[in-house]
Amino acid sequence: MIDPRVASGLRDLLPAVMIPRERILRSFRETFASFGFAPIETPHIERMEVLTGKGAGSDEVLRQIFEVTNKGGTPGELALRFDLTVPLARFIARHVDEVGVPFKRYAIGSVFRGERPAKGRFREFVQCDFDTIGVDSRLADAETGQMIHRALTAADVPPCTIAVNNRKILDGALESLGLSGKTGLVLRSLDKLAKIGRDGVQAELARPDDSGGAGLADEQAAAVLDFAQTGRGTPEALDAAASRFGSHERAAQGIADLREVVRLMEAGGVPADRIAVDLGLARGLDYYTGVVFETTVDGWERFGSVASGGRYDDLAGLFTSRRLPGVGASIGLDRLLALLDEAGALKGSSSTAPVLVANFPGVDPSVPTRLAATLRTAGVGCEIFPEPIQVGKQMGYGSKRGHKLAVIVGPDEVAAETFNLRDLETRAEDKGLAWSVLEDSVLGALEVIERRGAGS
Amino acid sequence: MIDPRVASGLRDLLPAVMIPRERILRSFRETFASFGFAPIETPHIERMEVLTGKGAGSDEVLRQIFEVTNKGGTPGELALRFDLTVPLARFIARHVDEVGVPFKRYAIGSVFRGERPAKGRFREFVQCDFDTIGVDSRLADAETGQMIHRALTAADVPPCTIAVNNRKILDGALESLGLSGKTGLVLRSLDKLAKIGRDGVQAELARPDDSGGAGLADEQAAAVLDFAQTGRGTPEALDAAASRFGSHERAAQGIADLREVVRLMEAGGVPADRIAVDLGLARGLDYYTGVVFETTVDGWERFGSVASGGRYDDLAGLFTSRRLPGVGASIGLDRLLALLDEAGALKGSSSTAPVLVANFPGVDPSVPTRLAATLRTAGVGCEIFPEPIQVGKQMGYGSKRGHKLAVIVGPDEVAAETFNLRDLETRAEDKGLAWSVLEDSVLGALEVIERRGAGS
Repeated sequence: MIDPRVASGLRDLLPAVMIPRERILRSFRETFASFGFAPIETPHIERMEVLTGKGAGSDEVLRQIFEVTNKGGTPGELALRFDLTVPLARFIARHVDEVGVPFKRYAIGSVFRGERPAKGRFREFVQCDFDTIGVDSRLADAETGQMIHRALTAADVPPCTIAVNNRKILDGALESLGLSGKTGLVLRSLDKLAKIGRDGVQAELARPDDSGGAGLADEQAAAVLDFAQTGRGTPEALDAAASRFGSHERAAQGIADLREVVRLMEAGGVPADRIAVDLGLARGLDYYTGVVFETTVDGWERFGSVASGGRYDDLAGLFTSRRLPGVGASIGLDRLLALLDEAGALKGSSSTAPVLVANFPGVDPSVPTRLAATLRTAGVGCEIFPEPIQVGKQMGYGSKRGHKLAVIVGPDEVAAETFNLRDLETRAEDKGLAWSVLEDSVLGALEVIERRGAGS
Repeated sequence: MIDPRVASGLRDLLPAVMIPRERILRSFRETFASFGFAPIETPHIERMEVLTGKGAGSDEVLRQIFEVTNKGGTPGELALRFDLTVPLARFIARHVDEVGVPFKRYAIGSVFRGERPAKGRFREFVQCDFDTIGVDSRLADAETGQMIHRALTAADVPPCTIAVNNRKILDGALESLGLSGKTGLVLRSLDKLAKIGRDGVQAELARPDDSGGAGLADEQAAAVLDFAQTGRGTPEALDAAASRFGSHERAAQGIADLREVVRLMEAGGVPADRIAVDLGLARGLDYYTGVVFETTVDGWERFGSVASGGRYDDLAGLFTSRRLPGVGASIGLDRLLALLDEAGALKGSSSTAPVLVANFPGVDPSVPTRLAATLRTAGVGCEIFPEPIQVGKQMGYGSKRGHKLAVIVGPDEVAAETFNLRDLETRAEDKGLAWSVLEDSVLGALEVIERRGAGS
């Protein structure tokens, strides 16, 4: 016998998890489409060279990559993608003439990283990415923020706050403070502000260069932190930044751009109190060049950002000489689901159909088959129990699976062309309803149950 | 510069392909759910032992498998799945106590086979599988046929014919003809009937054992073929089978079972002329034990079956001592899409949103942003052109992408709080409509366009 376990760091997803997951993905796809983003798909397997970028790939990436070989193939040539951004860069370099710009795409798919397995961290997980490529536009920047807001709201995620910043402001401020040579190290430290707090970041900034710190003097570190924390989350942040660094050309551009993005996000329906300007938001090192986003669910900040992104100058520089700027974000589906699960926001049903049609012993199975087909045609999902076992057991199955209603037709009901309708929660049963009112009765009962659920 | 090509046998999917693909998948998910099938997901990576079945895997499978290794991992331990059936068997062995039986699941995902690349054949492709596990039930058998019919019909696939047979009939007939020792070879030859014709199969059946044939005498081969072709596709097939082999217990059981399955499929709404009893339908060698299905699109039989499956006695015997019978089928999404593409049944739009909102030079971008948000709230998908370039160019983009309508607001319209509504196909333009009637005007115009499309 072979052990049916999955490999380390991987997992099976059962219906109770998959049903809300599919509901959320469907909602995301609808939202993305409602903004005119179109789906694309790239293979799970890419050429190694594409993923590692001719040595441009970091050690971290190389250590986590899953290599793929088939019989007769050359080892080291292929690997599983570790994100959807590198494949997008390759895709757009290859197809830009065919798809044209502006190109608005979304992609939803599994990515693979051989990280050390840990609780809640898996080696395969799903990313939902969307990007607008080929334009440098504040409208597209703001639309990215709008999409994050709409996608999460439409998927019934609890209220979120979208933190926004512009890398130009940070770059300008650091330059003004005489720290332009240390931007990378400082930004990397600032990213940890939420995790290790001001004192932790201050210590890291002050640690000498040769031990991985930025080597800042205490008052420099304090100035950086003061700036990063200025008016965090309030509209005053930008005013303060402007009065302090407005004379620096790059910072001034970043401030004006960010003001416009916030204004357009609000015009697009994102409530002002859901947008938090955060001058310390850095998001990574060398990739982003304009607006940056991070999104946390209110009260669940410890889960980190569930939707992040920003603007970049040059997406596909490794693959084409054509300069392709863009803006985009990625929703971390698995992190979001883990959060919703812990918040108790995932409904527990393992059934995709609200109605169970009993398979009554001694009744011709074509009868429930016909009734079920009639209900489906009326748009009501229903499952027939596949075997004519004891009806009580069938009802037990329905309750456990999360069916709402059962349609029961025994020999007496067949003779009278009627059915009994059982509420699987309250166990109330309407008896002797005519087949001719099947759809209306079931639709009406489902409405009652839904209202009861909404009221509780 | 790195070459942005994909690896041999793999491909990128562009919006024009992905949009109908996503529409079909969404329709499949809705149909599967309407029968109470629940989604599950298993990892793309499985342990090698699970996939190869401790040597039970055929050479064919081993030759096509993609091995996966990460830094620090042991070579030969992991591989990419080559179908969704083996992962289902492992899944159910592992989780049967948790999910219970009957267990109705569907799974949609990529599978990987290192086949020699050829036109229309890819190393990564998507399967859509559904199975009812844990019961031996004609109702579940018939439901499988119903699901195939409903799923394809609801996805707007042209009329299909579902060929059905029961492996017990074939087994019984071959036994009665004294060929029970050669069942495997005979069934494998019969599977080629559609491809190589009666003469081809006859020759193969008569070829000696030692050169890969079944070594049948000419009259035995003729008898097998006569039986396999008896009344193909007509209700008489089963009567003929009954009169010839009805005294054979196993064949008689198969005939009775198949009659019941056809009767229940019809009760479930599959038109009788869409079901074709085919006594020669064999479907593979050792897996299926009861009903078998194959589905072809009328007039496109040369594409082969787009949805196939059947009943099996023991799904997970490699992983558990618990005997788990079941029935299921798999829809080959990529084959189906290739067929629909060639049949001209895929619409050419690369846009997911019907409306393009112009970004008029000199107009505050918060104006189109606000109008677009209003339309989305009314359920109308719309895209704003991200840059304020010449409006004619924006209209060209919309026509090329497949947008239906454009909403245009220039400086005069802002002052008057009006908009112009342009039909991107006819180029007719309604001018000076008030913002207050935006949603109604757009919804009305889209309806007109839809009716025009349906009429043509």
